[in-house]
Amino acid sequence: MNRIPKIVILGAGYGGILTAQRLQKTLNYNEADVTLVNKHDYHYITTSLHIPAAGTGNPESSRVNISKLIDEFKVDFVKSTVVQINPEEKKVILTEGTLSYDYLVVGLGGETETFGIPGLKEHAFNIRSINSVRHIRDHIEYQFAKYKREPEHTEYLTFVVGGAGFTGIEFVGELSDRIPELCKEYDVNPSLVKIYNIEAAPTALPGFDPELVQYAMEVLTAKGVTFKIGTAIKECTAEGVLVAGDEFIKSATVIWTGGIRGNHLLDEAGFETMRGRIKVDEFLRIPGHDNVFVLGDCSLMINPENERPYPPTAQIAMQQGVVCAFNLAASIRGGQLKKFKYDNKGTVASLGKGEAIGIIGTRKIKGFAAAFMKKVIDIRYLFIIGGVGLVLRKGKLF
Amino acid sequence: MNRIPKIVILGAGYGGILTAQRLQKTLNYNEADVTLVNKHDYHYITTSLHIPAAGTGNPESSRVNISKLIDEFKVDFVKSTVVQINPEEKKVILTEGTLSYDYLVVGLGGETETFGIPGLKEHAFNIRSINSVRHIRDHIEYQFAKYKREPEHTEYLTFVVGGAGFTGIEFVGELSDRIPELCKEYDVNPSLVKIYNIEAAPTALPGFDPELVQYAMEVLTAKGVTFKIGTAIKECTAEGVLVAGDEFIKSATVIWTGGIRGNHLLDEAGFETMRGRIKVDEFLRIPGHDNVFVLGDCSLMINPENERPYPPTAQIAMQQGVVCAFNLAASIRGGQLKKFKYDNKGTVASLGKGEAIGIIGTRKIKGFAAAFMKKVIDIRYLFIIGGVGLVLRKGKLF
Repeated sequence: MNRIPKIVILGAGYGGILTAQRLQKTLNYNEADVTLVNKHDYHYITTSLHIPAAGTGNPESSRVNISKLIDEFKVDFVKSTVVQINPEEKKVILTEGTLSYDYLVVGLGGETETFGIPGLKEHAFNIRSINSVRHIRDHIEYQFAKYKREPEHTEYLTFVVGGAGFTGIEFVGELSDRIPELCKEYDVNPSLVKIYNIEAAPTALPGFDPELVQYAMEVLTAKGVTFKIGTAIKECTAEGVLVAGDEFIKSATVIWTGGIRGNHLLDEAGFETMRGRIKVDEFLRIPGHDNVFVLGDCSLMINPENERPYPPTAQIAMQQGVVCAFNLAASIRGGQLKKFKYDNKGTVASLGKGEAIGIIGTRKIKGFAAAFMKKVIDIRYLFIIGGVGLVLRKGKLF
Repeated sequence: MNRIPKIVILGAGYGGILTAQRLQKTLNYNEADVTLVNKHDYHYITTSLHIPAAGTGNPESSRVNISKLIDEFKVDFVKSTVVQINPEEKKVILTEGTLSYDYLVVGLGGETETFGIPGLKEHAFNIRSINSVRHIRDHIEYQFAKYKREPEHTEYLTFVVGGAGFTGIEFVGELSDRIPELCKEYDVNPSLVKIYNIEAAPTALPGFDPELVQYAMEVLTAKGVTFKIGTAIKECTAEGVLVAGDEFIKSATVIWTGGIRGNHLLDEAGFETMRGRIKVDEFLRIPGHDNVFVLGDCSLMINPENERPYPPTAQIAMQQGVVCAFNLAASIRGGQLKKFKYDNKGTVASLGKGEAIGIIGTRKIKGFAAAFMKKVIDIRYLFIIGGVGLVLRKGKLF
């Protein structure tokens, strides 16, 4: 009698959850042991974390218990943190225990890339998890409370967002909606509050349609955001940021959204990486390791259309999860593997309440229509992973 | 034609508001110019501040706009902070301007007394205003957010309340209700959270009925409060408190409720004070200054029954406000002044949701009945200052 192959999935993000869910649908009884490992007992919806971070929404809307997403009769779940991946011994070391595998799926998610800018690691927040967004939300509110006690400290009311990519833009959109609410609650004159969005690249949302970028900047400027584009942050301290041109912006709240790299565990495992990301083969495997698949922020795939890497998005991670599950089943069964091909369904970036920009197919959308599409996309995701029940529990159209 | 006498009331607390409201009822047209001066454009209900401080209730329930309480055709209102009282020139210096008076009512409220304990002033919070309770509430929540990011810092989850008088006891009652909610919201194991209530006197609630004090301590201990009674705080630092016996309790949150003194402006005005409080005559005036009345925390009156000063409570300040208004009208009209006589209507201390202790008349009450009485007292106050409308807007029976 053959031993049942063991599949270990690291990370219950977009890629990991989709892989686990597709495997539990595809695999027959006793065809494989599937174990999903995740640091928390919940999955979080990274694409909406900017909302609870600004305080315009509840963090509970951005997370789902993993027990609601997987069938525990088919997939084991281990709540633990991965300490080390050992591809030679086919083992994964966890803070609590060790798992051996025949097939490994690495969907561990990325880490913040600070590009060596001094002080960012120590003094800036990152919008990266439920814990981090609760921290940011409470920190922001706390600055208003502190300002009322020490009104000479105007830096309490200055908020610096480093990076004007999707996360940075979506976050300042929410924050500019939240500020008037906080001003009302804490009796603060709104004209004292400053929001800076600082981007080193020559444009906000690099690579996105210039007309829509222009629209986004106009909307956000009207909501009180000051953009500093083509302006690098040179240093971050506990007192604020030093930017190109030797201007120092005093701020008690710096939020860095300017870079994502892969995961240090992949470097440490001895794989060849580019900033923690692995250039996977067309089947999503690590070259030379046919039993190790990499998804999401840890994977690197080149877009043949422009010879540049695909950006790390939820959309691509989900599609990778589906293909990864197919290829795992095919590997076990000795079948033909499927090549991954990215199907770009479009991109929408929120600019706060009732405002967004996006491209769906070849069509540019903006304003309320785009904001509506954003919500449709969010709800579609809830439906994919959790069906109608999850949509009713977590989805909000308005 | 005689000049119309000017009455200036400093402070819109319990004493000041009652004085202003009674004057606007009593005085005839052009009998006096009455000006009420207050730092904020709202009155706050000091006796309920422990609730928003713990986060179990909204700060808005503890404040009322002054415009809703006074008739602006009869009483002028100036939003400003008092800088100096000059009794020789009969002037009050404000941050914005100067007011001259014929009669002055000082209802400025007390200040925190730290008894010279090192570090309390710098590192401890005080439950003293809307701004301070928003600060405390946000600080507490922020500790939970920070703990999830730095779980080695258990001091984030340790809360020290200095003083087990009414404010200290009522606050730990609310805080012990709030902790389970925060633990749920932030995924924190409740057994990690510690609440210490530290009191130098040999008993909690000194002077209160010992049987009821015993009951209160049992209720609060069961809710997770650790009492250290007969234990002085020797020093407070940014890391926690050093208590008698050289025990250091690490805590990121120290809230000092252990002492109230009068107002430094009375010392600076050259009046004879005892810790900023003035021993007023039986008509509530400063001896030697027949045109200056002092109410509330700034006044000192001896209880003839036990030869000790009356504690500074809302109840006594309100009764003083009524007598003060009567005596002001009598002074202007050349009539007979009324002696102040304190009518103790009883005392109830909340221990959190559904629990309280109290004495009404000679009757001891506890548990739900006492909690209900506490709410009745709160609503009665709203009714006195703002009628049915204010009760409906701010009052909550459950």
